[in-house]
Amino acid sequence: MTYCVGIEVDEGLVFAADTRTSASFDDVRVYRKMHIFEYPGERVFVILSAGNLATTQLTMSRLNRDADDPSCTRSLRTFKHLFEVAEYVGEVLVASQSAVNDQAQHSGVSVQSTLVLGGQIAGERHGLYMVYPLGNCIATSPETPYLQIGESKYGKPILDRILRPDTSLEDAARCALVSLDSTIRSNLSVGLPLDLALIRAGDLRITQQMRLEADTPLYAEIHDTWSRKLENAVRTLPRFPWEPAREGQEEDQRSLAQVIAPPRRMAARQDPGDEAGQQ
Amino acid sequence: MTYCVGIEVDEGLVFAADTRTSASFDDVRVYRKMHIFEYPGERVFVILSAGNLATTQLTMSRLNRDADDPSCTRSLRTFKHLFEVAEYVGEVLVASQSAVNDQAQHSGVSVQSTLVLGGQIAGERHGLYMVYPLGNCIATSPETPYLQIGESKYGKPILDRILRPDTSLEDAARCALVSLDSTIRSNLSVGLPLDLALIRAGDLRITQQMRLEADTPLYAEIHDTWSRKLENAVRTLPRFPWEPAREGQEEDQRSLAQVIAPPRRMAARQDPGDEAGQQ
Repeated sequence: MTYCVGIEVDEGLVFAADTRTSASFDDVRVYRKMHIFEYPGERVFVILSAGNLATTQLTMSRLNRDADDPSCTRSLRTFKHLFEVAEYVGEVLVASQSAVNDQAQHSGVSVQSTLVLGGQIAGERHGLYMVYPLGNCIATSPETPYLQIGESKYGKPILDRILRPDTSLEDAARCALVSLDSTIRSNLSVGLPLDLALIRAGDLRITQQMRLEADTPLYAEIHDTWSRKLENAVRTLPRFPWEPAREGQEEDQRSLAQVIAPPRRMAARQDPGDEAGQQ
Repeated sequence: MTYCVGIEVDEGLVFAADTRTSASFDDVRVYRKMHIFEYPGERVFVILSAGNLATTQLTMSRLNRDADDPSCTRSLRTFKHLFEVAEYVGEVLVASQSAVNDQAQHSGVSVQSTLVLGGQIAGERHGLYMVYPLGNCIATSPETPYLQIGESKYGKPILDRILRPDTSLEDAARCALVSLDSTIRSNLSVGLPLDLALIRAGDLRITQQMRLEADTPLYAEIHDTWSRKLENAVRTLPRFPWEPAREGQEEDQRSLAQVIAPPRRMAARQDPGDEAGQQ
């Protein structure tokens, strides 16, 4: 299995991926699932992959071959719009699946892959797409600013609760790392090291890129402190009516009367409308 | 679908369950999945259920019938040990599945149910078991102090990070509510209202019991504040090397040097050994 997440906020794009591939419990390997296509100043794309490794590798090889061929009229370098790139990547994915499928008919092995494609082309807003095995794709939206592939359930609640279009790029990246760390902790098929990449809107290149191992200080610190922060957050949630207030802890001293006061709802968000949506 | 979680800590037991049952998107109902069997001062059990509703209801009816029959030699009231109760509940579950299956052969509908059974019998430590559709069962352990049934992935990371045998009963209950709330937020098949029950060790009765609706102050407050607490926790995680320190926020002013310092690992826990384990 795999877990990858792409996030689109107003400030840019975040990509995070684990590196564990497994054919079974005793056939576990490390492979990069984050694929970077960078043409600085002109365009930049990141593709995250989940599914059949042979299909993914063939797809990436073909994308690179086409992009490196100046005579190729349809490649990552030729399209003017990101949605066209997503369509093209979908076509290459479907063709790669067919090629692998022809070689391995009736084997019972799924040759499908699913991709997350994000990036920016000069003159256009950055964007993020999910490319399905059928070759079709969906974009993020202001209400759903992230896309996940692979073992997505464990890491979804933190994304649902935190991410909004106005979340800062770095907070979105921290959120992605927590989402990955939670998944790794709860599921054996997702594993370290992690790849993290950030594209700040307008940079037209990879702004920051890191590989995080268990002993990388930043990751170790996040891994070690997050549980403590959660534990503190759980403890400072409203107390049950039968519990005595804790002394000396202001946030714990809520009386039941306070708890019964109308809950503070979040202010209604302005309807982002179509103009803020993905093209 | 369903999401229920049972937690065993040294102070006692926590049970939490949603109430949504669905045969399809347009056949959604509210049913209680928390079943209480209380014989104050003598013994108390809570059973959480997931799976086929007819099977579950038949199982609960049979458990109640047997317990109410003074001449019945095998019932919730007759066994001396909790593991024997778990075995017996497994037998009743298997018999109920067979009964339903005989009526609905080859329909393609699964008649299986999975149960979480917890409680305490006078003179014995409290305990918690998962009863599988085959009738066999597993207990919690000090390393794995909780059991989930149904749509379990979304709410697992918070349990993995927070729960230890020495977690207080109320903190465990808050953790269960957050686990349920996260699942409800991320998955349509799990829904309000929630049932929550606490059994404090030695009480030999249900110590506290609540039904939480969306507008129950305690639940509304947890629902409303948890995201803000998480957001704050994400913001105060270590900053990336390229980020400037935030002014006036002590926890954000970690320099890279601090981050690079050896991570503070949790102290190794003492091996709980067999004597602390479930019988």
